[in-house]
Amino acid sequence: MSVHIPDTNLPRIIVIGGGFGGIEFCKRLDTNRYQLVLIDRYNFHTFQPLLYQVATAGLEPSSIAGPLRKLFENKKNFYFRMGEVTRIHPEKDCIRTSLGEIRYNHLVIASGTKTSFFGHDENFKEVFPLKNLPHSLNLRNSVLRNLEEALLVDDSKERQKLMNIVIVGAGPTGVEMAGALSELRKHVLPKDYPELDFSQMQIYLIEGMSRVLSSMSEKSSEDALKALKKMGIIVLLNRLVVKHDGEQAALNDGTVLPCRTLVWAAGVTGSMIEGLQNVSIGKGNRFLVNEFNQVQGAQNIFAIGDIAQMISAENPNGHPQLASVAMQQGVLLAENLNRLSDKKNMQPFQYLDKGTMATIGRNKAVVDLPGKIHLKGFIAWLAWMLLHLILLIGFRNRVIVMINWIWNYITYDRSIRLILKAMK
Amino acid sequence: MSVHIPDTNLPRIIVIGGGFGGIEFCKRLDTNRYQLVLIDRYNFHTFQPLLYQVATAGLEPSSIAGPLRKLFENKKNFYFRMGEVTRIHPEKDCIRTSLGEIRYNHLVIASGTKTSFFGHDENFKEVFPLKNLPHSLNLRNSVLRNLEEALLVDDSKERQKLMNIVIVGAGPTGVEMAGALSELRKHVLPKDYPELDFSQMQIYLIEGMSRVLSSMSEKSSEDALKALKKMGIIVLLNRLVVKHDGEQAALNDGTVLPCRTLVWAAGVTGSMIEGLQNVSIGKGNRFLVNEFNQVQGAQNIFAIGDIAQMISAENPNGHPQLASVAMQQGVLLAENLNRLSDKKNMQPFQYLDKGTMATIGRNKAVVDLPGKIHLKGFIAWLAWMLLHLILLIGFRNRVIVMINWIWNYITYDRSIRLILKAMK
Repeated sequence: MSVHIPDTNLPRIIVIGGGFGGIEFCKRLDTNRYQLVLIDRYNFHTFQPLLYQVATAGLEPSSIAGPLRKLFENKKNFYFRMGEVTRIHPEKDCIRTSLGEIRYNHLVIASGTKTSFFGHDENFKEVFPLKNLPHSLNLRNSVLRNLEEALLVDDSKERQKLMNIVIVGAGPTGVEMAGALSELRKHVLPKDYPELDFSQMQIYLIEGMSRVLSSMSEKSSEDALKALKKMGIIVLLNRLVVKHDGEQAALNDGTVLPCRTLVWAAGVTGSMIEGLQNVSIGKGNRFLVNEFNQVQGAQNIFAIGDIAQMISAENPNGHPQLASVAMQQGVLLAENLNRLSDKKNMQPFQYLDKGTMATIGRNKAVVDLPGKIHLKGFIAWLAWMLLHLILLIGFRNRVIVMINWIWNYITYDRSIRLILKAMK
Repeated sequence: MSVHIPDTNLPRIIVIGGGFGGIEFCKRLDTNRYQLVLIDRYNFHTFQPLLYQVATAGLEPSSIAGPLRKLFENKKNFYFRMGEVTRIHPEKDCIRTSLGEIRYNHLVIASGTKTSFFGHDENFKEVFPLKNLPHSLNLRNSVLRNLEEALLVDDSKERQKLMNIVIVGAGPTGVEMAGALSELRKHVLPKDYPELDFSQMQIYLIEGMSRVLSSMSEKSSEDALKALKKMGIIVLLNRLVVKHDGEQAALNDGTVLPCRTLVWAAGVTGSMIEGLQNVSIGKGNRFLVNEFNQVQGAQNIFAIGDIAQMISAENPNGHPQLASVAMQQGVLLAENLNRLSDKKNMQPFQYLDKGTMATIGRNKAVVDLPGKIHLKGFIAWLAWMLLHLILLIGFRNRVIVMINWIWNYITYDRSIRLILKAMK
């Protein structure tokens, strides 16, 4: 077995990861000048901002995924390989993968982040992260199965455990997840489970910082908190979940919350690939890069997006780990490498902040735009939907997601509540 | 743990299985007269005739599934339980399930069929049946993963093994599967995998009888065979697959076909539930029933659909195992039980044959209507699509499937080619 990528006289660029950064890079790279190899564990790009809607039965997996081969179908000198990268050998310009070794002329690391339990994996045994499609399908299956089981238990405490959901982390993912679950609880589940009393179902949102959406403006945090409370979500700030044993979640202030399902929307850490010197690695397992996204101490290795840490006076901890940063870095790096092949100079990266947003539920969202402009309510919600439709990959996905959203809006329904694991 | 179904003074009817027969029965039963309990291993009804389109990346699982709770959301005295029935105790009018015991006044067995390897399970270790949604997702994952792997192997025989697909059984499922795979091979895969030579990919359709679609007219068999051959499918008649070891399929005439993927669209056997006397069980593990679908030797136990065998002069082996038989039996049995509660007599079952159909591909189908009317080509294909849209459960599913079909027709694409298991 070998990777079977033909050797040509074009320099070869390997991209690790088909996330937002990786695919923007691949789109813009001029493959008349380079041979381009993209490696990912999955054969599709995942539109992560909508994973929570798959988990809450509002959208299908395929609606938020774009098959990578399809995406680059017409790109010449492009090779996709589905596999895992296990090590970088910078001394011989090659990477080791589950498919064999591949040499490169330039390497672009766009491997993103993975879930981190802050070094205490052993305390979190049955937890649902929300980083990829299988995660969101597992969560959907589990929430629905627990309700089926709740019908069968005799003890009301047991029942509560099965119905409750604790979400850790009140960033955009946590807030959106909490909002979507609250709408399920209000509009869908009581019809599906008339035998259950949904006033017994608690949705907890736990945040270590002093406000929800702490990366957004104070105004957005306030509006979001108000909306969440109005939807009956119990928001606990300044608190950490220190343990979950599959039956209850323990907080650092001694509180114990009975729950089977714990959704982890909190810490992430860089999806590190071994082999580079330790000096290249910064806080949170991110590769330290210069303004051209070149990894410290390596001439022909670049890192973009969440895995990259570009420290500057304005960004002493690097840029925020957002899709927009990754996309902008992907675009610029491709252009820089195109330039490089013309012996032109590379341009330094400058992040253009176009704003941040989060949706809480039906007609409820918050948007921060540059210049301290703050939107909320229906208009913010419309803006959120429009932007997400535009950013989705593929015309078909946009159409299908839009139809689903309109359908869900009119009917108050979430149609995709299938439990795809059989119950014994 | 217990099933928690309230005891009322209404007689209780338990239905085992939410397939075509089971749901028609539940729809028509008057739940002012009866308490109705539906048990299924899954929380959704599966529209089995379109499973092959999920397996070939044309449709999403949710498009052909209808959540059972949603379906009977407004039905009073209706209880759904997700679980497996393990035994019938006719002597005490109760069934044993994975959720506990439940007593009944009337029992309706609508458990359908499962895959059968004609008593030689040990010879078929890595085989893909097509009876439920997880099956079709497994098949989709496997076909696509094998192509990813085919890129990596050095040996051309190994590569062929990964690309070839053998389909066992040329009934409607086998024929439709072969046709859909052939269209994938022609229109989609060469674009996705420009590095592979798809003239090397063989699709075999193996049938034990002397013609394809043997349950349809001779004319339909001929037309279908012609179309299949034109699409480059290798049809082998009068032959049986006797073994598949994950590397090759062995036929009874000594032929050996290299293939990783073997799709099993051949034999089925009744999904038997233990506990009834042996005299109640006929050929193919079906419950022998009288013209009222009453199981032989049991007063208050009924069987409908594929699991029932109603032997008569016209049907010495019982009715064909078709959705339309199951639906008609479900409707009549519900009406009969409604009648029974008014002390009226039950009506005997009379199958009304409305015709049979199978689609082979784009603009290609065959339809047999009563009165020996035979349609083929574009008009048959339109009829097939229309009927399947009508029979699909839920308005949303009809809309989404129609959009997908139009999309696939115009673009020649199959969009849902996600491999949802990561590759190491």
